[in-house]
Amino acid sequence: MMAAGLPGWDHDVSATCAQVGEHALIRWIASAVGSASSADVLLGIGDDAAVVVPRRNHVDVLTTDVQVDGVHFTRAFCGAADVGHRALHVNLSDVAAMGAQPRVALLSLGLPADLEARWVADLVTGLVTAARAARVQLVGGNISRAPMLFVDVTVSGAAKPRHLLRRSGARPGDELYVSGTVGAAAAGLAWLQSAIGRAGSPSRPSPQGAETDAAEPGDGRFGERALPSAIEAALTRYRRPEARVSLGLQVGRNKAASACIDTSDGLADALRQLAGASGVGVRVDAAAVPVDPAVTELALRTNEDRDALAWSGGEDYELLFAVPRRARRRFLHASGRKGLPPVTRIGMCTREADCLIVQADGRESPLPGGFEHFSSVDSVAGGRIPEAGA
Amino acid sequence: MMAAGLPGWDHDVSATCAQVGEHALIRWIASAVGSASSADVLLGIGDDAAVVVPRRNHVDVLTTDVQVDGVHFTRAFCGAADVGHRALHVNLSDVAAMGAQPRVALLSLGLPADLEARWVADLVTGLVTAARAARVQLVGGNISRAPMLFVDVTVSGAAKPRHLLRRSGARPGDELYVSGTVGAAAAGLAWLQSAIGRAGSPSRPSPQGAETDAAEPGDGRFGERALPSAIEAALTRYRRPEARVSLGLQVGRNKAASACIDTSDGLADALRQLAGASGVGVRVDAAAVPVDPAVTELALRTNEDRDALAWSGGEDYELLFAVPRRARRRFLHASGRKGLPPVTRIGMCTREADCLIVQADGRESPLPGGFEHFSSVDSVAGGRIPEAGA
Repeated sequence: MMAAGLPGWDHDVSATCAQVGEHALIRWIASAVGSASSADVLLGIGDDAAVVVPRRNHVDVLTTDVQVDGVHFTRAFCGAADVGHRALHVNLSDVAAMGAQPRVALLSLGLPADLEARWVADLVTGLVTAARAARVQLVGGNISRAPMLFVDVTVSGAAKPRHLLRRSGARPGDELYVSGTVGAAAAGLAWLQSAIGRAGSPSRPSPQGAETDAAEPGDGRFGERALPSAIEAALTRYRRPEARVSLGLQVGRNKAASACIDTSDGLADALRQLAGASGVGVRVDAAAVPVDPAVTELALRTNEDRDALAWSGGEDYELLFAVPRRARRRFLHASGRKGLPPVTRIGMCTREADCLIVQADGRESPLPGGFEHFSSVDSVAGGRIPEAGA
Repeated sequence: MMAAGLPGWDHDVSATCAQVGEHALIRWIASAVGSASSADVLLGIGDDAAVVVPRRNHVDVLTTDVQVDGVHFTRAFCGAADVGHRALHVNLSDVAAMGAQPRVALLSLGLPADLEARWVADLVTGLVTAARAARVQLVGGNISRAPMLFVDVTVSGAAKPRHLLRRSGARPGDELYVSGTVGAAAAGLAWLQSAIGRAGSPSRPSPQGAETDAAEPGDGRFGERALPSAIEAALTRYRRPEARVSLGLQVGRNKAASACIDTSDGLADALRQLAGASGVGVRVDAAAVPVDPAVTELALRTNEDRDALAWSGGEDYELLFAVPRRARRRFLHASGRKGLPPVTRIGMCTREADCLIVQADGRESPLPGGFEHFSSVDSVAGGRIPEAGA
C-alpha cells in the first residue's frame, strides 16, 4: 500500500520499533526536521533540552495535549500521518484560543516494541509537515517504549500580553461568535463507526507519508461507493483538524474579543467553560448555530441524534469568542480577512448564571451537560480531548 | 495504609478515576498547586494554555520526558508520590544539564478509568511537593483516559545564553568529571527485583501523600530485616532521584565546563553521547569512577555484575562535565560550594575517536555499548529513560 519512499528512511518497511531502535529513530526524526534552524532556536534536537529565544515583548504560551491509541484515534480510522497532524493541531488550537502565535513543539512518543517503525516515521512526517505549514519547529522530545501508542505534544507560542485572549474576560451583554461549523468532526467519526461507514471503503484512512497532503476528498480513493461531499469533508475534519491559528491571532491583535476558548470538547462544553470562567450566563439561539451539513446528512441516514452531535460533538477545534458590542465592528473586520473561516453570531452573555438554549419558538432549555472524559467509556475511538488545564 | 488526609480531597479512598471524573481531578490539582502565582506566571491552570513571562536576557530551555507504568516504574516498587517526584526530576535533570534554572512544568496524565483517583492525587502531591522544593510552578497540562498509566512532564527553564552547557563543546585535553556516584539507582532497582529484595518488606514503596518526604531510610519502616545502609540509600536514589540543578547552575554561571550531559541512561552512554556530539574520544580511568557502595554491596550478595551496574546502570541523574584545563580551578571552586554533590575526575577527552576504559594495570577496553531503550525488553520495570532529543 505504501509505495512512496520516505527521504532518508533506509529500514525495511516491516521492521519494528524494537528492530530499528530508539537511537536510529531519533536520528531519522532529526534529519526529517532538518537543520533549517531559525534565529529563534538556539538548540534543536540533539542536546539534553531545546533552547529557544523568547520573542521580545512577548510572553510564552505553553500547552500540552496527548493522542492515545484507542482513545483519541484508532489506526483503523486514521492513517499515521493523520495522527501526527492531529497531535500537533490539538495543541495549536489551544495556542490559537489564547490569540498567540505557535512557535516550537516537543514530541513525546510512547511506542510499543512491535509497532512498525515505518508507521512511526509516517506519523512524524505528518506532524512535521503540519508544523512546517504552521511555521512551527519541532525542537525536541523523547521516545519511550510503552504498552500502547501515545503521541504527546507540547507547543510553545508567543503573544504580546495585551493581545492575550482569556476564557475569563466575557461580560454580560457581550455577543457570542463561533468560527466555522460545529459537529463536523463528530459526524465524521460517527460515520466511520456506523454500519454504513464500516461497509464502505472510506473507513480506510488517508494514505501515509509525505504525499498524504495531496489526497483530496472525491479523488476516487473511496472506491465505487460515492460519498456525500458533506461526509467526505467531515472525515477530513475528523482526521485532519485545522486549528484556527490565524483567526485567533487576528482577533487577539485587534483586541476584538473579551474572551475566547476552543471547542475541542464540543460547543456546549466551550460555552459552559467560558461562562463559568467569566462569571456570566449565556443565551444561545439554537437556530443560529452553524451546524455542519454532515450532521444533518448523517442524521438522515443513521439514527444519530442531530442535536447531540451539534452541541456535544467534540474535536471540531473551532474558536468561540465573546465580543463586546463596542468591539463588534472591529471583530467582524478582523475575522473577515481573506482566508479566515466564517464566524457566526450565536447568542450573548447574560447577567444570570444560567446557560440556556433558546429555540426559534422562544422555548428555553438548559445547555447539555459538560463532557466528562472518563464517562465516555463506550465512545472509545476518537473520544474527545479534555481542554488543557490540569 | 493511607491514614493521613489530603487537603481538599473529599472523595472516597477507593473511588476510581472514572468515578471522580476528569473535571473534579483538575479542580483538585488546581487547588493543590494553589494560587501562589508568581510574577513570572500570568496564567496558570484553568485556561486553554499557560502564560509565562520569559526571564529578561535569558533563553527558554525546554524538555519533556515521560514515566510509563511497567516501563519506567512499577507500582510494586514505587509509591504514588515517588512516581510524581521522579516524573518531575527526570525533566529537571535535563534542564540542569543545560546549566539552566527550571521555572514551570506542564503535566500530561494518562489514566486508566479504574485506577484509584486517590493514587493519582498522591502522585500529583509528590510532583507538586518536588516542584515547590525546586521552585518550579505547575502551570498546566491535561488529563486523558488511557489503557495504562503514564505521566508525561514538560519543564521550561531559563538560562543566559552564555551560561548554557551543551553536549558538543568538549575539546581534546578537557578533563571529565562526574558528580555523585554511579550505579546507585540501578543497584536499588536490581535489589528490588532480586529474590532477596522480594523476600523482604523493603519492596514496599514509600508511603503515599504529602507526608512522604519525612520518610527516612533506617526509620524502621522496613520491618525486622535490617538493610545495609548503602542499599537503603540506593532505594531512595531509585525512587526519588534528585536532579543536580544547583550544580548545573553553578558550573554554567561560572562558565566552568565546555560540555555537560546527564547520566540518565548510564555513565557509558553519557560518555559516548558527549564524545560523539563534541567530536572527541574519551579515556576513562576505571579505578577513578565513583561507583556507588550499593553496587559493591549488591554484587557481594547477588549475582549482579558490578561493572554492568556501574557503567550501564541508568537513572542516576548525575551530571558529566568536560572541563578545559584552564577552567579546572574555576570548576572545582564552583562545584565545591556547600550543599553540592562531590565531583570526581574520571578521565579526559582525546583527539582519537575511541571511547576507552583504562584499567589500573594499563589495559584498555572499549566502553560498553550504548543503551537502546527498545532492546531492554527484559529489564522492564524501571527501564532507563532515553535522553531528551527526539
